[in-house]
Amino acid sequence: MKVSRSPITGKEYMLPETPGDRENIERFVAARPGKPVVAVQGLGFVGAVMAMVCANALSEDYTVVGVDLPSESTYWKIQSLNEGIFPLVAEDPKIEEFYRKALKKNSFYATYDEYAYSIADVIIVDVNLDVQKKSSPFKDLDGYDVDLKAFSKAVEAIGRNCKEDVLILVETTVPPGTCQNIVHPILQNCLEHRGLATDSFKLGHSFERVMPGPQYIDSIQNFYRVYAGIDGKSADATEKFLRTIIRTDQYPLTRLGNVNASEMAKVLENSYRAMNIALIVEWSRFAEEAGVNLFEVVQSIRMRPTHSNMMLPGIGVGGYCLTKDPLLASWARQHMFSGGDSLSQSEMAVRINDKMPQYAFTFFQQQFQKKLQGKKILLLGVSYRGEVGDTRHTPVELLYDCFVNAGSEVYLHDPHVRFWVEKGLEVGDNLAKQLAHRPDVVVISTGHLIYKKPECIEALLDLPRAYIYDTLGILSDDQITKLRKKHTVKVLGRGDL
Amino acid sequence: MKVSRSPITGKEYMLPETPGDRENIERFVAARPGKPVVAVQGLGFVGAVMAMVCANALSEDYTVVGVDLPSESTYWKIQSLNEGIFPLVAEDPKIEEFYRKALKKNSFYATYDEYAYSIADVIIVDVNLDVQKKSSPFKDLDGYDVDLKAFSKAVEAIGRNCKEDVLILVETTVPPGTCQNIVHPILQNCLEHRGLATDSFKLGHSFERVMPGPQYIDSIQNFYRVYAGIDGKSADATEKFLRTIIRTDQYPLTRLGNVNASEMAKVLENSYRAMNIALIVEWSRFAEEAGVNLFEVVQSIRMRPTHSNMMLPGIGVGGYCLTKDPLLASWARQHMFSGGDSLSQSEMAVRINDKMPQYAFTFFQQQFQKKLQGKKILLLGVSYRGEVGDTRHTPVELLYDCFVNAGSEVYLHDPHVRFWVEKGLEVGDNLAKQLAHRPDVVVISTGHLIYKKPECIEALLDLPRAYIYDTLGILSDDQITKLRKKHTVKVLGRGDL
Repeated sequence: MKVSRSPITGKEYMLPETPGDRENIERFVAARPGKPVVAVQGLGFVGAVMAMVCANALSEDYTVVGVDLPSESTYWKIQSLNEGIFPLVAEDPKIEEFYRKALKKNSFYATYDEYAYSIADVIIVDVNLDVQKKSSPFKDLDGYDVDLKAFSKAVEAIGRNCKEDVLILVETTVPPGTCQNIVHPILQNCLEHRGLATDSFKLGHSFERVMPGPQYIDSIQNFYRVYAGIDGKSADATEKFLRTIIRTDQYPLTRLGNVNASEMAKVLENSYRAMNIALIVEWSRFAEEAGVNLFEVVQSIRMRPTHSNMMLPGIGVGGYCLTKDPLLASWARQHMFSGGDSLSQSEMAVRINDKMPQYAFTFFQQQFQKKLQGKKILLLGVSYRGEVGDTRHTPVELLYDCFVNAGSEVYLHDPHVRFWVEKGLEVGDNLAKQLAHRPDVVVISTGHLIYKKPECIEALLDLPRAYIYDTLGILSDDQITKLRKKHTVKVLGRGDL
Repeated sequence: MKVSRSPITGKEYMLPETPGDRENIERFVAARPGKPVVAVQGLGFVGAVMAMVCANALSEDYTVVGVDLPSESTYWKIQSLNEGIFPLVAEDPKIEEFYRKALKKNSFYATYDEYAYSIADVIIVDVNLDVQKKSSPFKDLDGYDVDLKAFSKAVEAIGRNCKEDVLILVETTVPPGTCQNIVHPILQNCLEHRGLATDSFKLGHSFERVMPGPQYIDSIQNFYRVYAGIDGKSADATEKFLRTIIRTDQYPLTRLGNVNASEMAKVLENSYRAMNIALIVEWSRFAEEAGVNLFEVVQSIRMRPTHSNMMLPGIGVGGYCLTKDPLLASWARQHMFSGGDSLSQSEMAVRINDKMPQYAFTFFQQQFQKKLQGKKILLLGVSYRGEVGDTRHTPVELLYDCFVNAGSEVYLHDPHVRFWVEKGLEVGDNLAKQLAHRPDVVVISTGHLIYKKPECIEALLDLPRAYIYDTLGILSDDQITKLRKKHTVKVLGRGDL
């Protein structure tokens, strides 16, 4: 018998053997007569929070059903949501607040039964669409691929059940061309098969700009949105819906000419960011070779308003979006339209960023003449971003793997991560305890605020002589001077040290 | 006998046979006793204007000597300056105003005699430092090179003459490492050879951010500056001087840790810009393939403050800086320090931008099934930037060459360029006259304001059926609709047309 285990509570749930949750869905909806029903497909990092935003819409009282698959990795989320435990450890207190409100007014229910789509007026698609990278220690891009099968199956589940005149809003980041070339034909086929009209449903695309962290909800409700529809009525319906959940008076909506444009906007904005990070990744090494503090150089350039988006040095890129969206774009250009070339800059950006942690490791190999076996390494931070507990595609993973492969003893600390899901590892949250291992090397690998607090500096000063590597430039000049009285201190992108 | 011809007045000057202008320099300086003397080396696009800014300094009354070589291409500038004709056709009325003021108070003199350096308290280096690209129709980057010989000779001329305690301020954009590894040793050698102290002179680097166009002077006097010195006293002297010519109360100076950092800041900021232009160049093609209006997509992304620097589609990059600075950086990384890798993104940016005009041409080859022989092509704009008469490295040159090679008859129009120096071509400034040739193709190749004025649209509507290609997206939707009633209209980066 298969079970799905909650990494938050540890509780295990048996997967349903004879799927069917129709009765519960009907009972839930019937209790709120006359309220429009929104179904959210996919209860991951975006979908679960999006469901809460819909259940607390600004100018409409939606009945919201969250839907995900009854699989080992997701079923616990459904059960957890119905049991009063939100399935994300989130830094934004608004999420818990929104969730409590929804439970209180009984406006949210989670299910694994695709029957939910049949009672929805609006269906929001928030399922994942991943890029398959060849797994190698250095994640080489050669032969990366995009597989639309799982995504298409999710769309089919909607097509099998949805109302004839439903609004389907795709929020998933997709290769440009997907709504037009994949989603629209699938829905038409399904509806035709069911003997329904194939031109009544509305299909829109409006990508999310969710930023995990303390402004999670605001990054949906209080932020600019771009959208488009497969036709005029779809664009109108999408706009009307978005106006009920987003503060469009402060953050005006932008309607684009077609769904390809909206899909393209998302992967272009993330290509822009990934590329600009990669630029500084490459120049960090140049700066170190030239004895230059790249942080002060970038700050001096950012004074020009035309250059204010320039990024600062760091260990690389993590998270769900920047590591794959540029590839979705390049793949789409090659496969969705007239078979164009790859997008060389988007691909190069991902390639450079993916390899960045390896560079940090190579640096240590040089410092220790490759004798890293048995060395004790403490990584401060495993999540991919400061003040966030999200470890998806964190660059720290490659750094961790490199050290482990070299035979080092690696200790982990992170104030926001108890359990590193992707690695199946416990993570310490007691800094003193981790420092008690007396590490030879301390790497500040995530920009959590705690690591620049005086208490942390004092604790580091209590260590026996060690090698401290700040991969994010969070230590101040004073702190560096203080630490250097005892330790060797190095900051990535600062060749002046 | 060699002559130097002014492209502005047509006047010809015989090159001096026995160089020597010492008497004039001494007389000029003696007439302004007690005033500190600034020598500006190089009277090109930056140096000539920088000399005017110094001659009209905010808090000091400098005596300024401009120095350039007595060569065929530059001697006329020296003579022209002393005869009351500024050697640049500039769109900024302040330049003429500053020039007149300097002449009136007799605070500026131009010469070809390096003796000028011997009487200077401050010497500003504004000579060119070029990248040698293999000349091919598509300007391939393979084998590009940086030759520091001419630049080094210019520094030697200073070293042979300068005062022991002079401040030498390098403004030229140089490969990072140049001041430390090239300029400083040359100056020390020269001074040692002359039996002078080798540690009294001051050497600073502070790059210009000159923007040709109507804010030419302001881009020097009213803009942020970054600087550094080879040592503490050099940094202090550089700062003191800059404070006399720049409004540092409104545009604070930034001192960086060393000259490598200041040199790096300049080539990094231009790499950033060149790369972000190249990103949109590549995506313009993708947008056209996907039927997307990339202009509206970029505008929708720019609403995010973190993405506000995203560029708009265009025909490519021109001008003196963006076409070479990224290469200076990549060359420096490989040759100035520990022999690092090339900077792949900087090089890729230049490669993509350089080829952009070829893409526009390929588009026409497809439209006309390669039958461009004998077709009449009118290029609207030859300068590299709207409202500017600067044709250096203009992308229009490659487009022009492609059409000429294909056997087309090419007509040129530009309101700001009378004579295209690099091609040795006259350029028409009468639009009606150029349109009277009844072109088959009209390419809006530079973003001059005149081309979006109603008069221009009306004139285009008077043409027999033609192909109009807006490579910059300056036509409004209304104008496009109007023109389409008669012509075929296409906008680069707009696949929705």
